[in-house]
Amino acid sequence: MKSKYIIVIGCGRLGSELAVKFSQNHSVVVIDKNEKAFSRLVNKNFTGFTMTVDTNDMDALKKAKLDKADIVYIVTPDDNLNFMLAYGIKMIKKEINKEDLRIVARVNDPMKKDLFQRAKLELFCPIENSANQIFADFKGADEL
Amino acid sequence: MKSKYIIVIGCGRLGSELAVKFSQNHSVVVIDKNEKAFSRLVNKNFTGFTMTVDTNDMDALKKAKLDKADIVYIVTPDDNLNFMLAYGIKMIKKEINKEDLRIVARVNDPMKKDLFQRAKLELFCPIENSANQIFADFKGADEL
Repeated sequence: MKSKYIIVIGCGRLGSELAVKFSQNHSVVVIDKNEKAFSRLVNKNFTGFTMTVDTNDMDALKKAKLDKADIVYIVTPDDNLNFMLAYGIKMIKKEINKEDLRIVARVNDPMKKDLFQRAKLELFCPIENSANQIFADFKGADEL
Repeated sequence: MKSKYIIVIGCGRLGSELAVKFSQNHSVVVIDKNEKAFSRLVNKNFTGFTMTVDTNDMDALKKAKLDKADIVYIVTPDDNLNFMLAYGIKMIKKEINKEDLRIVARVNDPMKKDLFQRAKLELFCPIENSANQIFADFKGADEL
C-alpha cells in the first residue's frame, strides 16, 4: 500500500477523526489556529504531525509543504474560511504546477454549496450526508 | 404508499432539510423554539405544519401529539438538549404505551455517542457519516 501525504486543516470533531484514522496508514499533518484543538488527538494513537498556523494567513499555510501533499481536507466549522482556504490553495496549486493535488472542502450550510460548486471546488456536506442516510434508513425500516 | 406522521424537532440546517423532503409524501410537524427558524422552509414547497414550542418544556412537547406520531427526529445542534428530549420522549412513549414510535436523535460530538447508546437511544452522527464517506471516497479515488 502506497502511503500518501495528507493535510487536514481544522482539528475539530471531524478533522481530528480524519487525522487519527488516516495517520494509521499515511503521513498526516493536521493544522489548527488554536493549539488546544490538538487535545482531541490525545490518547487516540495519532501518529502524524500537528502545526499551529493562523489559517487566515495564506502565506503561513505554505509551511505545510503543499508541494509535497497528495490531498488537503479543509474541514473547519466556518464555511467562509473553508471557501477562502480552498480557493487560496487552488491558486497555490496552479502556481506550483501541482495538478494531482486533491483539495476537498467541507460545506456546513447546504445553501452555500452552490458557491463552492461554481468555484469548481470539491466539496462534501455533512448535513446532506446525514439527511441522505436518514432517508435511506427511513425507507429501509418502513419498506416504502 | 402509506403516509406517516413524522415529527422533526429542531428546524436548523438538517431539520429543515428533513422536514421539506418528508413533507412531500408524509404528514410532517416541525418544531423549533425560535419562530425565525421556520424561514428556512420558505420557498421550498414545505407542506407540513410548524409549531413554536419551548423545547426545554417536555409538557409543551405533548402538544405535538406524540400519540399519533410514527417517528420523531430530534436534530437540534445541541447534544445535551437532544439527549434530554430523546430520553423524555422515550418516557412519554412508555407512559402512553406506544411501542411502535421510533425516536431518532442526532449526536454532534462523537465523544457523546456512548452516552446515547447506553441510554438505548437510536442515534446518528453527522460527523461520523461524513468521515466514513470521506474514507470511502479516498479509497475509491486512490484504489487503496
